[in-house]
Amino acid sequence: MSKSIQSGIVFLLTVLTFTVSAADSNVTPAKNGIAFPDDYKQWLPIGVSHRTDNETLRLILANPIAKRAIDAGKTNPWPNGSILGKIVWKDSIHQYWETATVPGKMIHTEFMFKDTKKYKKTGGWGYARWLGKNKKPYGSVSAEKECYQCHLKVKNTDFVFTRPVTLP
Amino acid sequence: MSKSIQSGIVFLLTVLTFTVSAADSNVTPAKNGIAFPDDYKQWLPIGVSHRTDNETLRLILANPIAKRAIDAGKTNPWPNGSILGKIVWKDSIHQYWETATVPGKMIHTEFMFKDTKKYKKTGGWGYARWLGKNKKPYGSVSAEKECYQCHLKVKNTDFVFTRPVTLP
Repeated sequence: MSKSIQSGIVFLLTVLTFTVSAADSNVTPAKNGIAFPDDYKQWLPIGVSHRTDNETLRLILANPIAKRAIDAGKTNPWPNGSILGKIVWKDSIHQYWETATVPGKMIHTEFMFKDTKKYKKTGGWGYARWLGKNKKPYGSVSAEKECYQCHLKVKNTDFVFTRPVTLP
Repeated sequence: MSKSIQSGIVFLLTVLTFTVSAADSNVTPAKNGIAFPDDYKQWLPIGVSHRTDNETLRLILANPIAKRAIDAGKTNPWPNGSILGKIVWKDSIHQYWETATVPGKMIHTEFMFKDTKKYKKTGGWGYARWLGKNKKPYGSVSAEKECYQCHLKVKNTDFVFTRPVTLP
């Protein structure tokens, strides 16, 4: 058995284990009722960004539905079931490379969920954010509108800021 | 069948398809003989960084062996078979968010491969880099030593610059 097949099988088992356990969440849902997507640690990356206004580094992830839409070039509009996640850290400087900004303190995890019926009032996306390592729900019931107001800037890309990268 | 199980199965099939096809590489190996790791697009992210000296954004990935070592807290030394990848883009400014630096032109993909026997002369890691979208091998046979010289700075973390992030 080749190494790549072996490593593939181990990976499959890991994914299977994760899939079965994905339903058991200990995270408090956001106040708008959105549940924390427990499986996000298995999602593939679709981008990175560095915001110099608030000095944060971001890793952007896509759930499998969103990832397949990207690979098929069909993200305008994104299909229902798509979830995009942003993992946000405060800037830090690498101890041995002073011109490298690297993740420091964990700030928050935030997600947008595509469901054109359920989230009709906010452009077809539901928004939720959890603060810090302990994933404390952010904001009030209407926090969703705060997200939406800002995402209106990118209405022409179905309210998504991230331009997914193409890995070579 | 629950949605999470359905989506898990689709994901498994995707991974399986990828695994079977992983052996067919059209990429020219590096001049030191290292082959391009065709399965890297399925690896999970372990970090991001922004280098202001050469204005590049980086996504850092780990193969399943390296990822399991991180999850087990056993990365000093990293186990043989670990591969870490860096995907590097030139800085670009987001069209609708001027204080956000986002990936621009694809610069290169680079990987380090842990094998204490094979790469004994360079700290137990083999290094290789491929340039641009077309993945053109970088440098000469001895390019590996160029990488090693720089990675000597982080000998105390088994020659790895990246401090893997912990997702909450």
